Amino acid sequence: MENIKLNIEKTLDFIAKDKLASYEEKVRACMETLEKGTGLGNDFLGWLHLPSSITKEHLADLKAAAQTLRENCEVVVVAGIGGSYLGARAVIEALSDSFAWLKEKKAGNPTIIFAGHNISEDYLYELTTFLKDKKFGVINISKSGTTTETALAFRLLKKQCEEQRGKETARKVIVAVTDAKKGAARTTADKEGYTSFIIPDNVGGRFSVLTPVGLLPIAVAGYDIEKLVAGACEMEKVCANGNLHENPSALYAATRNELYREGKKIEILVNFHPKLHYFMEWWKQLFGESEGKDHKGIYPSSVDFTTDLHSMGQWIQQGERSIFETVVSIETPNHELHFPSDEENLDGLNFLAGKRIDEVNKMAELGTQLAHVDGGVPNLHVSVPTLNEYYLGELIYFFEKACGISGYLLEVNPFNQPGVEAYKKNMFALLNKPGYEKESEAIQARLKK
Amino acid sequence: MENIKLNIEKTLDFIAKDKLASYEEKVRACMETLEKGTGLGNDFLGWLHLPSSITKEHLADLKAAAQTLRENCEVVVVAGIGGSYLGARAVIEALSDSFAWLKEKKAGNPTIIFAGHNISEDYLYELTTFLKDKKFGVINISKSGTTTETALAFRLLKKQCEEQRGKETARKVIVAVTDAKKGAARTTADKEGYTSFIIPDNVGGRFSVLTPVGLLPIAVAGYDIEKLVAGACEMEKVCANGNLHENPSALYAATRNELYREGKKIEILVNFHPKLHYFMEWWKQLFGESEGKDHKGIYPSSVDFTTDLHSMGQWIQQGERSIFETVVSIETPNHELHFPSDEENLDGLNFLAGKRIDEVNKMAELGTQLAHVDGGVPNLHVSVPTLNEYYLGELIYFFEKACGISGYLLEVNPFNQPGVEAYKKNMFALLNKPGYEKESEAIQARLKK
Repeated sequence: MENIKLNIEKTLDFIAKDKLASYEEKVRACMETLEKGTGLGNDFLGWLHLPSSITKEHLADLKAAAQTLRENCEVVVVAGIGGSYLGARAVIEALSDSFAWLKEKKAGNPTIIFAGHNISEDYLYELTTFLKDKKFGVINISKSGTTTETALAFRLLKKQCEEQRGKETARKVIVAVTDAKKGAARTTADKEGYTSFIIPDNVGGRFSVLTPVGLLPIAVAGYDIEKLVAGACEMEKVCANGNLHENPSALYAATRNELYREGKKIEILVNFHPKLHYFMEWWKQLFGESEGKDHKGIYPSSVDFTTDLHSMGQWIQQGERSIFETVVSIETPNHELHFPSDEENLDGLNFLAGKRIDEVNKMAELGTQLAHVDGGVPNLHVSVPTLNEYYLGELIYFFEKACGISGYLLEVNPFNQPGVEAYKKNMFALLNKPGYEKESEAIQARLKK
Repeated sequence: MENIKLNIEKTLDFIAKDKLASYEEKVRACMETLEKGTGLGNDFLGWLHLPSSITKEHLADLKAAAQTLRENCEVVVVAGIGGSYLGARAVIEALSDSFAWLKEKKAGNPTIIFAGHNISEDYLYELTTFLKDKKFGVINISKSGTTTETALAFRLLKKQCEEQRGKETARKVIVAVTDAKKGAARTTADKEGYTSFIIPDNVGGRFSVLTPVGLLPIAVAGYDIEKLVAGACEMEKVCANGNLHENPSALYAATRNELYREGKKIEILVNFHPKLHYFMEWWKQLFGESEGKDHKGIYPSSVDFTTDLHSMGQWIQQGERSIFETVVSIETPNHELHFPSDEENLDGLNFLAGKRIDEVNKMAELGTQLAHVDGGVPNLHVSVPTLNEYYLGELIYFFEKACGISGYLLEVNPFNQPGVEAYKKNMFALLNKPGYEKESEAIQARLKK
């Protein structure tokens, strides 16, 4: 079976070839630091050999829990934020029918809804209203159980589920994905007797899609988590290669770091396949949160082409030359549709008649690559044979490993996120959370100025 | 009635106050250039006094056409891309129930689906499959009728609509929004006898949401286009003021240009209200396509908070100090939901009990503003009384006028988009489009190298 492939040829006009060669040794050193666990953030390296350590029994447990939810729910609300949200959503949306939401769902194949990822009163009002006549279940994903967004939604949803379906059924259709021992979500799960799964201590949120955090919702949505893990396993092997040009993760990490040094401050992740939209959001967290610190880091951005060629395309073609693009390209679509001929040909499109739609899309992709490279935008290209669980697994591990290496090349700790606490601390102070009395006083004084 | 308000106080630690004052005169000159039509791109100033020139009769015509579609369709497909897509989607999504798509729709209040904005074979296959048992109509939005993405989808949809509903009904439920006289979509509309509306020659795509391009789909979705236009009219008046500090469009344009000069290369448009997601996409096209040229221009990016505080938040707080934020804040939600108390309080959230969810959201917003400003991110704040048609109209015109002024301050032509043609030309050459024989030969030779 073919693997995903990285092509950096269209960056070579922008970076000196010997520059890239100079990364050979650096990359090998970063990989060794990861393997030996001797670098910054070494408490959070559980993702590194996660794929190959997942057992059949673990997957069977996840599938059994998923099956219970599938059989007993018309709707399953996945409550989580950040790393407890984006991985599952990325995979589910990539694999779902574009119009799945418009199709009637029922117990057996429930609709997946995401919540606990915002504090929007309208969103939560409309969610609880929508759920009023639904047989719904909840997956509560939170390491601590006190992340405001998720805890807030979960309190509302637990109450509603118990009221609508009775305490006993609620216990069956609420599942917790949380810490093994501590925290509010663990306490609640144990007390209520929920089925629960563990978020390992050594896997950070943005690297957690192959833990139950991602695997359970993906299984509930009806997708094959064994294949997903198998793809990740394959990449775990491929990306262990110490040779820069035989290891796509290493090559990607080196290339983007060199581009960054050359003044390319923004990386735009590109798809020509709208279902990858949330995969790009997952990628933005992975790289943004890992590298955006110490006043450093490439700014991660993303576009859905050709849609956004008609919005961001102008900027990309002719704006500041501070960007590069990484295209995630799907070689073969899952469906086949040929463009029909038309006798009158008023739209002048008969030159496309008989072609597959994807052939046009691919020429848009190639045409865009050439145009943007001509315009001064280096282009990396990740080729994916087709969009299924296996290759999403490959993509996930490819980017995770690349991120670990890339962060070490940049000389930051890629596994912490100290900056995320700043707004929370202010918010708690403003809301007079117990324990924040001093901060409350200070912030109120500041606001009065 | 209150208007939307701009507050730039939290940028003043980052730009010298006298610097802003120096824009007084420049801004007035730009506004005069716009009014007199003496600047670059002066063929495309139709948006400037568009709101006040829209007649009751025009709105009545639009509403009548919308009513025909609403009564005769379960689904209406809006086919368009770029400016013929984002404006309508921005307004419709901002006003819709978060779970509207999951609710059963029927003739009388049809589901709105967007198409013609990508070349995805899977998307079009799944769309045409989904529509197979639906009474659907189409709004075909294209100035020329030959924009590849939209023309491709429209050929498929027209054929399917005629086959499923019969030629006669199809004529009633297909509406064209296109050029007054020329182009493929005009020819087809006249030949088939479709109801049609005109895209004025002097309004560019990204400024066209208040033409039938946006107004018709918005009316079909059941929203009040009179209120939308009324809001825009109000801002047309407010933003005619020549005094920098009394004209929010002028002040926004001046502030962001000065921040750009100071090295703030990326503007992040922020919402704390997920329904505004597509409004931010509309804004990205408006500013990106208007300013991203001549190797200049702020890179427009957007985030949905608090969701993305858990993905991009780290970068924003501690990454390169090359960014500023503009928050679009909604003062009052449309629904009311109070956070319940819980006897056991395992999640420790009883300090929020009895509060409205929005109160928590507002403290997240304020806490984030303080944290990001402390971290070196200048913050602009646009306050919107509530999310309805009227204030969306205000926001639309506010940003359009600001964009015109801002582009002139940057000394680019804000009304062209020459860079968008580059990928199209290559694509046509690669697809052997008639008339591109020379380009085909050249590009094939290039690829063989």
